[in-house]
Amino acid sequence: MFFDMQQLAADIRYKVLTATVTPRPIAWVTTCSSDGIANAAPFSFFNVLGHEPPTVALGLLRHPGKGSKDTAQNILETGEFVIHLVPHEMAASMNETCVDAPRGVDELVLAGLKTLPSRNVAPPRIVGCPVAFECRSILNQETGPRQFAVIGEVLCGHVDDAFVIDADKGYIDTLGLDLIARMHGSGWYSRPGGLFQLVRP
Amino acid sequence: MFFDMQQLAADIRYKVLTATVTPRPIAWVTTCSSDGIANAAPFSFFNVLGHEPPTVALGLLRHPGKGSKDTAQNILETGEFVIHLVPHEMAASMNETCVDAPRGVDELVLAGLKTLPSRNVAPPRIVGCPVAFECRSILNQETGPRQFAVIGEVLCGHVDDAFVIDADKGYIDTLGLDLIARMHGSGWYSRPGGLFQLVRP
Repeated sequence: MFFDMQQLAADIRYKVLTATVTPRPIAWVTTCSSDGIANAAPFSFFNVLGHEPPTVALGLLRHPGKGSKDTAQNILETGEFVIHLVPHEMAASMNETCVDAPRGVDELVLAGLKTLPSRNVAPPRIVGCPVAFECRSILNQETGPRQFAVIGEVLCGHVDDAFVIDADKGYIDTLGLDLIARMHGSGWYSRPGGLFQLVRP
Repeated sequence: MFFDMQQLAADIRYKVLTATVTPRPIAWVTTCSSDGIANAAPFSFFNVLGHEPPTVALGLLRHPGKGSKDTAQNILETGEFVIHLVPHEMAASMNETCVDAPRGVDELVLAGLKTLPSRNVAPPRIVGCPVAFECRSILNQETGPRQFAVIGEVLCGHVDDAFVIDADKGYIDTLGLDLIARMHGSGWYSRPGGLFQLVRP
């Protein structure tokens, strides 16, 4: 089946892309507005892009008529964000922060989440997430009238000691983190499974 | 455990990032050099970034001393690439294209892969991959001396009819695609598994 992207309705394009580019790692992102109100929301248009310097990409969408989501607006205003990877036991809390709360409402409070201060940026770190990366935007690139891409530099990372096998070597117990990823359709997610190893030629 | 990215050696930063940002979807990318020699290589610094227009990001690294990989060089020269999602049954073939072949050597031939012409771009499409997206670069952003980020527009997509449930609605049999994703460490990958559903609030 051939899908000409320029001929497809936007919502169908979205479905074709999100049903095929799977699994997608999840960035549960905290930001602060310029007047200091915190915000949290999950995004699966996310990945690492490099390590010298360490960079990540986020794809952020605007709602038609409603303007940027708080996360997008806050990154544009402050350049700062914290990315958390999400363990299965925090899935329900993460999902609560998908709620379309009015601007200025702190989803962290709504979801009953506890936070700690970050080291290098203003947005707080969510307690209970085994991995968090403090980031600063190095590029905010408009890619369409309703979307932009953020490339951020990772300033520092926090990894729960329980999952650090050897800090000097950067060995982490990846499977122990039990991170969820975004799959297809209406709210399908996955946990780690089906592992196999390939030896690089 | 606190990891200050500016204090860590590059290889340790790489390990911390790739052991935590998991699972990562895989783009098996074909490109052509300006003199028409095809190339294929897999990348897991990849994701969708938006759908209006449909965009994807790729993070491409340079080897110290050896310059850009063919994929990076070819995208800089031509702006064109085809992204394939990789089914488990093609995992071994994909892995063969990780080989560090000299520039000008076609990994597709080395791995015994068959290809079809693409519709809108010069790089060919790999036979046996159930999903392929023809892309054109809209931004090549240097993010460090040895890496750059590509944001590409998806011009069109090909999905194997066997996995298209309803083309008009964009319904795809995601699990049927049996796509592999990149996990941690030395060559760990995953197949789909551990699915669960969350109802958005």
